[in-house]
Amino acid sequence: MNAVTLYPLKKLEIILEGAHREFATDLLDRAGVKGYTIVGNLSGKGSHGLYEGHLMFNEDDVLIMIIAAVPAELVDPLLEGFQPFFEAHSGVVFVSDIQVGRLVKFRD
Amino acid sequence: MNAVTLYPLKKLEIILEGAHREFATDLLDRAGVKGYTIVGNLSGKGSHGLYEGHLMFNEDDVLIMIIAAVPAELVDPLLEGFQPFFEAHSGVVFVSDIQVGRLVKFRD
Amino acid sequence: MNAVTLYPLKKLEIILEGAHREFATDLLDRAGVKGYTIVGNLSGKGSHGLYEGHLMFNEDDVLIMIIAAVPAELVDPLLEGFQPFFEAHSGVVFVSDIQVGRLVKFRD
Repeated sequence: MNAVTLYPLKKLEIILEGAHREFATDLLDRAGVKGYTIVGNLSGKGSHGLYEGHLMFNEDDVLIMIIAAVPAELVDPLLEGFQPFFEAHSGVVFVSDIQVGRLVKFRD
Repeated sequence: MNAVTLYPLKKLEIILEGAHREFATDLLDRAGVKGYTIVGNLSGKGSHGLYEGHLMFNEDDVLIMIIAAVPAELVDPLLEGFQPFFEAHSGVVFVSDIQVGRLVKFRD
Repeated sequence: MNAVTLYPLKKLEIILEGAHREFATDLLDRAGVKGYTIVGNLSGKGSHGLYEGHLMFNEDDVLIMIIAAVPAELVDPLLEGFQPFFEAHSGVVFVSDIQVGRLVKFRD
């Protein structure tokens, strides 16, 4: 009766300058992403483990991290959608496996 | 001498309205969760990849994310414990695999 | 043309008192970690799923979480580097698998 079924999803953690928040959430909305959570006021430095050696963030950038749980088939289209943006701006996207309990959510 | 052994644990990321923080941490405490870290002042929107289509968060909710590393056998009881809450309130729980170094921690 | 290749990396989430931020980022820099992102103003309690039962955080500690994406071969040296610190101070390191799109990043 109380059993919780876990569903596999992919978690995207999109770190970018806060000034580009609306661009990113618009892209998520248009791709059909149902929701996201945003962590603000991050700081950061460097290129986050990527191999290019180009500067990614300055220490005084104000960064945000947008967290979204998406079906696996949305990962490639989303990364392709973000690619032109990240060719011109700083940022990174982490992709990882998560499970989410299918908890029906109502608001009154 | 300095070897670090990694232990597999499950990471829970519990996103919910800040007003319900104490409910959530009490539930964790009672379930035997040894610790947690809380990220405050999040914002968010939507239903986080779930399939119901019900509104989860409004854009002006003040959300928190409670991060806890727990043994795998605690995941099901915790999710069952949260289920009645999430039937009445907004929120989501992400479950993922992590490893934690067994670093003995003393405080003075 | 727009194909996105994903590269496996390890994500470190290093939670410690904010007063020790520079120690931690210096250690990351010296180990060759290319970048990191810092979430500030966390709160927390307890020992985060470890087995020792010692107090890790007090509720009034100001904690930070340093997020870094690193090649797998850096995980052991980094954990060994942090070990003496965590023998004397509160904190925890979570290790998990992520994938990062190889998005070339330029800043003007």
